Amino acid sequence: MSSQPSWPVNTWYVACTPDELTSGPLGRQIGGKQLVFYRNGDGKVVALADFCPHRGAPLSLGFVNVDGDLVCGYHGMVMNCDGSCKSMPGQRVQAFPGVTAYPIEERYGFIWVWTGNAEAADPALIPDFSWFDEPGWTYGGGLYHIRCNYKLMVDNLMDLTHETYVHASSIGQTEIEEAPPESFKDGDTVVTQRTMENISAAPFWKQALTFNDLDPEALVDRWQISRFTPPSHIMINVGVALAGEGGIDAPADKKASSIVVDFITPETENSIWYFWGMARNFKADDAELTNTIRESQGKIFAEDLEMLEAQQRNIDDNPDRDLLKLNIDGGGVLARRMLDRMIKAEQSGA
Amino acid sequence: MSSQPSWPVNTWYVACTPDELTSGPLGRQIGGKQLVFYRNGDGKVVALADFCPHRGAPLSLGFVNVDGDLVCGYHGMVMNCDGSCKSMPGQRVQAFPGVTAYPIEERYGFIWVWTGNAEAADPALIPDFSWFDEPGWTYGGGLYHIRCNYKLMVDNLMDLTHETYVHASSIGQTEIEEAPPESFKDGDTVVTQRTMENISAAPFWKQALTFNDLDPEALVDRWQISRFTPPSHIMINVGVALAGEGGIDAPADKKASSIVVDFITPETENSIWYFWGMARNFKADDAELTNTIRESQGKIFAEDLEMLEAQQRNIDDNPDRDLLKLNIDGGGVLARRMLDRMIKAEQSGA
Amino acid sequence: MSSQPSWPVNTWYVACTPDELTSGPLGRQIGGKQLVFYRNGDGKVVALADFCPHRGAPLSLGFVNVDGDLVCGYHGMVMNCDGSCKSMPGQRVQAFPGVTAYPIEERYGFIWVWTGNAEAADPALIPDFSWFDEPGWTYGGGLYHIRCNYKLMVDNLMDLTHETYVHASSIGQTEIEEAPPESFKDGDTVVTQRTMENISAAPFWKQALTFNDLDPEALVDRWQISRFTPPSHIMINVGVALAGEGGIDAPADKKASSIVVDFITPETENSIWYFWGMARNFKADDAELTNTIRESQGKIFAEDLEMLEAQQRNIDDNPDRDLLKLNIDGGGVLARRMLDRMIKAEQSGA
Repeated sequence: MSSQPSWPVNTWYVACTPDELTSGPLGRQIGGKQLVFYRNGDGKVVALADFCPHRGAPLSLGFVNVDGDLVCGYHGMVMNCDGSCKSMPGQRVQAFPGVTAYPIEERYGFIWVWTGNAEAADPALIPDFSWFDEPGWTYGGGLYHIRCNYKLMVDNLMDLTHETYVHASSIGQTEIEEAPPESFKDGDTVVTQRTMENISAAPFWKQALTFNDLDPEALVDRWQISRFTPPSHIMINVGVALAGEGGIDAPADKKASSIVVDFITPETENSIWYFWGMARNFKADDAELTNTIRESQGKIFAEDLEMLEAQQRNIDDNPDRDLLKLNIDGGGVLARRMLDRMIKAEQSGA
Repeated sequence: MSSQPSWPVNTWYVACTPDELTSGPLGRQIGGKQLVFYRNGDGKVVALADFCPHRGAPLSLGFVNVDGDLVCGYHGMVMNCDGSCKSMPGQRVQAFPGVTAYPIEERYGFIWVWTGNAEAADPALIPDFSWFDEPGWTYGGGLYHIRCNYKLMVDNLMDLTHETYVHASSIGQTEIEEAPPESFKDGDTVVTQRTMENISAAPFWKQALTFNDLDPEALVDRWQISRFTPPSHIMINVGVALAGEGGIDAPADKKASSIVVDFITPETENSIWYFWGMARNFKADDAELTNTIRESQGKIFAEDLEMLEAQQRNIDDNPDRDLLKLNIDGGGVLARRMLDRMIKAEQSGA
Repeated sequence: MSSQPSWPVNTWYVACTPDELTSGPLGRQIGGKQLVFYRNGDGKVVALADFCPHRGAPLSLGFVNVDGDLVCGYHGMVMNCDGSCKSMPGQRVQAFPGVTAYPIEERYGFIWVWTGNAEAADPALIPDFSWFDEPGWTYGGGLYHIRCNYKLMVDNLMDLTHETYVHASSIGQTEIEEAPPESFKDGDTVVTQRTMENISAAPFWKQALTFNDLDPEALVDRWQISRFTPPSHIMINVGVALAGEGGIDAPADKKASSIVVDFITPETENSIWYFWGMARNFKADDAELTNTIRESQGKIFAEDLEMLEAQQRNIDDNPDRDLLKLNIDGGGVLARRMLDRMIKAEQSGA
């Protein structure tokens, strides 16, 4: 790990989902640090450096005992939640060195971790996505591991022009690239958005209209509003409404819309954990529909994977080439500028 | 990439076959450069640096549109054949930087590329293999990717002694190693050759005699004439004639012979694209025979693959060891000397 | 290879088993050196540098001819057992450079190799495991390739506390970690041992009691005596006796015991060849029992593999962290100290 990663460290990242902790401790690299995550006896999630102070075995190969303590699977060191050694068969562990414990919060159905200066880890700094917890909303999603720098995924999601090409058979349509996007700062977030009026719905949206008991062949007004919240959380309000009914402001029974949820977490300089999903506030109790949407979205989002990994390799192989910054890249450029400021502030000790 | 590759750059290499371009653009590294190949609207093959000027995506992940233009598969940049940007939805591309276009020729059923100084790329410098296009000849072959420096493959083909060992069950026979080869320069080429008289035919040649309606058990005179044309094209006249009928000069109905075709193209310092095949001027219309021969040759030539990759690893692990230069290595040594002169001339700016 | 490996070189290592040489020459890296092993015409095993002096092909891709000589599979170089060139078709090989031949001994059913200064290679320096050859003993075992430094495996075997955790379902039981081990030097070896009295037998030992026609549910006294002989040979006397019958000294019909045999051979700094097995002096003629035990042991010992490889990666990623040296680590610490002295003596030219 370089001492100056390309991402801010004094911030919250999504580390995993509660589901991933049900079958035992989880080892995962976050922000260049190898961590182990587990749920302790109080039901609270804990993150420690994944390194047993005894002989260096990964604690994630161990288990959580009946007291909810993490036990090393090699020689039985028992860890406290604060990273200190609790006990070990036949040993007095009080003087043993411990490992770093990382601030953890569980919110909006995700586990958030802070890999920077622990004293600054204020849970209030987790962005407000409280609509997640509001009644009437439901969520389905998944996790992809992608070998690219996290900024390439930010670019991807802040310029949906690529849908026309990468996702030609599902959510792409020529009208997207013909509608120039608008990008701007909105407080501490960056927004990039476009609307398309009086068009046919792309295949994915025909399906969504059908789910909402609307005519899939009807002309629609379509919108895409990507909102970047640093360091790398992107919520995209997407939808179609029957043409002329008010677009995003159309009544619920005249539109189909949802929030594409993207949490991008740097693993290393050249790899990310990409938590993708879709939140919706219609038919929230229909678990089968949630599964259908998740499967459909999973296939579409997997199409980005090959492109991003190939793009990263190509950029690595061509260090002297600058990339273009076009109007369609405006959202990504504003987001990167915001990140640069955060990183510079961290480095200057602010 | 080191700035001084182990191969000459101001020369033509075989890059691919027309067949490889039928299903869309082809990304391939040639001479240390990542290129994309496609056939444009005029039916002409184009080679560009495989890097979209917009965001660095590989152009080879894109497609050729109805106009025969290469379109980036990420955000729709359309490229001109000269590497400049032609158009992009919603953009004025005139001032955009382009990418390098590489000289390309299509000849003898192969696509040839020049990765050096484009101004010097004279198609007349492609070696004369015009017999390829003569009536009565046909060709079948394949492509192997091998992790070795291209010179190890030149050595291999300029010393067929190895057939006795590597290809013991097909074209090898003890008489090969007992017949000392003769190696000499012939103009701008290097020849290494041997003849063996009054011997039994090796299994592959028994099969060939049968194809030519000759007695597979008859005694034969056998010849091998490898001709190296720089940088790495090797044609091997191989055959057997009924003993005493004149060897290579025997009448067509007393012999079975063909030209082993080898185009070796450096990919990196430690890998090659190896285009292998066999050209023959008998039963040229017999497509089934072409397939039978190709399959048989493919199996034999795959035997070299393991040996060459292991040899390369071994040489890498023993940088202090010199290799021997025996009489059987004479062809390879002369070829390497010719290459050294070419590379030196390039480096001195000649 | 660094010039100062982490292991002593003027010593004997187990390289392979006779079985591995029955189907032709064997290429294997031992102590950072790529070697080829074969049995010559006299029935003696030979070890040479795996590099043909002609063109650098691995000799291990060749074959042993009817005279018992090793022949290169590329162009037919025939090697002498001392590493000099014996002959080659059409060549006078007297002046050819040869390759290094390594001292080899075949003893106790294993092939031993010496990769250091050949003049010092006294077969008498092979540790005395002559009980291996005594009547009444039999052996079954296997070979694992593990990506860790050899010292991590020494640690593993000199601290059997890990059985409680890594092998919880077979040989592990809580009583192990509750019985403090005793570690001490014994001449040129290191011993670490523990005994447990009046306990239930762990599953593996229940099975062993049954093999010995004893009651698997009986209370037993259990012992583990690991003896480290440098550089990396560890014999572990393990067993259970019916409680109160004298433990290790109990009469044969009151106990079940065997010797766990571990020969650890460094391949590279981060990988080993691990020869594991079990020697026993009961029912020595029962080949089916030998197989049953081997299979059972193979599964148990495979459990260490994942842990050791993960531990190595973790240590590599945390170069600044010291490991703890607890009482349970005493055997490993004494063994490492002995190794350090050997390596220091070698480096000072002693």
